Amino acid sequence: MLYPQPVAKLIDSYMKLPGIGAKTATRLAFFTIDMDDGDVQEFQDSLKAIKTDLGHCSQCGNITDVDPCLICQDVNRDHSQILVVEQPQDIMALENMHSYRGLYHVLGGVLSPVKGIGPDELRIKSLLQRLQTNSQVEEVIIATNATPDGEATAMYLSKLIKPAQIKVTRLAHGLAVGADIEYADEMTLQRAVEGRRQL
Amino acid sequence: MLYPQPVAKLIDSYMKLPGIGAKTATRLAFFTIDMDDGDVQEFQDSLKAIKTDLGHCSQCGNITDVDPCLICQDVNRDHSQILVVEQPQDIMALENMHSYRGLYHVLGGVLSPVKGIGPDELRIKSLLQRLQTNSQVEEVIIATNATPDGEATAMYLSKLIKPAQIKVTRLAHGLAVGADIEYADEMTLQRAVEGRRQL
Repeated sequence: MLYPQPVAKLIDSYMKLPGIGAKTATRLAFFTIDMDDGDVQEFQDSLKAIKTDLGHCSQCGNITDVDPCLICQDVNRDHSQILVVEQPQDIMALENMHSYRGLYHVLGGVLSPVKGIGPDELRIKSLLQRLQTNSQVEEVIIATNATPDGEATAMYLSKLIKPAQIKVTRLAHGLAVGADIEYADEMTLQRAVEGRRQL
Repeated sequence: MLYPQPVAKLIDSYMKLPGIGAKTATRLAFFTIDMDDGDVQEFQDSLKAIKTDLGHCSQCGNITDVDPCLICQDVNRDHSQILVVEQPQDIMALENMHSYRGLYHVLGGVLSPVKGIGPDELRIKSLLQRLQTNSQVEEVIIATNATPDGEATAMYLSKLIKPAQIKVTRLAHGLAVGADIEYADEMTLQRAVEGRRQL
């Protein structure tokens, strides 16, 4: 059956979201029909705000509604460390651990010759500028993912930054806390052995 | 970490949808940030339309953007049959089978003393009016769900309608097509035996 047009359009919109197929989208659309008017209005407003009020921090590239972002503004944070991540979501995950107190820098992806992403497509120039203008920085921690592209990007950045006499480190890779050695993949085990520490 | 306010609000809105928890809502919100501007605008518009352009058909109670709805308007449908359902979604499911050609009537729920839903909370009065004013109607098919409340509502409607010399029927309950007898629940098996037909 043809759904009434407003319902069909809402189903289409829900289906554009990741992991939501036709059945789920239909269920969500019918749920939305019965939702409180105020909640639906808030939903609309928040969709609007996400496109109008949100931008990238001019310093670190994180998504933010104030510029510079709250982390870059924070004088209580350690401005001598910059942790380089691929995307803003990575910052959220790192902040949830509540122990890193330095600054961040969002690349916006990783170098990928296959996808045609070179250094100019990423926030690499602005990272180097930050290091030049800010003499406080003592350490750059590279936290790109452990994919081939992520590793290559880490190596590339390290070569660019090292001449400036700034320490460049990389997040440790190894067994996840709570993981069984029995079920670990070869790459993870290899990293765990390579990165072994003296007790 | 505190997300920027627009992100936090969108996560809240997504979390109001059924089956979407904090992690999924966050993933959807970050996906939305990167979505095409036009798609997000369409999403907003469809949320707006669902609350402004959609209403209930004055005849059958189905959700619709035109009144009477397309099914009630359709002169090619069989106006001598009315199939009574609990909610508009049931109509969509029945229409997908492409074989029922009669009309519908949406109760808007079922009688439930526990939830305080009596005959006045449902579209029962308008159903009886439809039967009185429309002498074409020969059969009312009651398709409430096979829950205790659904069964009670079916019995209640049947007693109200029968005096008007209109045939009242109920959808068959039994084994689903493709279902194993081995795994069927007792109630379903009981209905299947009760409703057995001669070959």
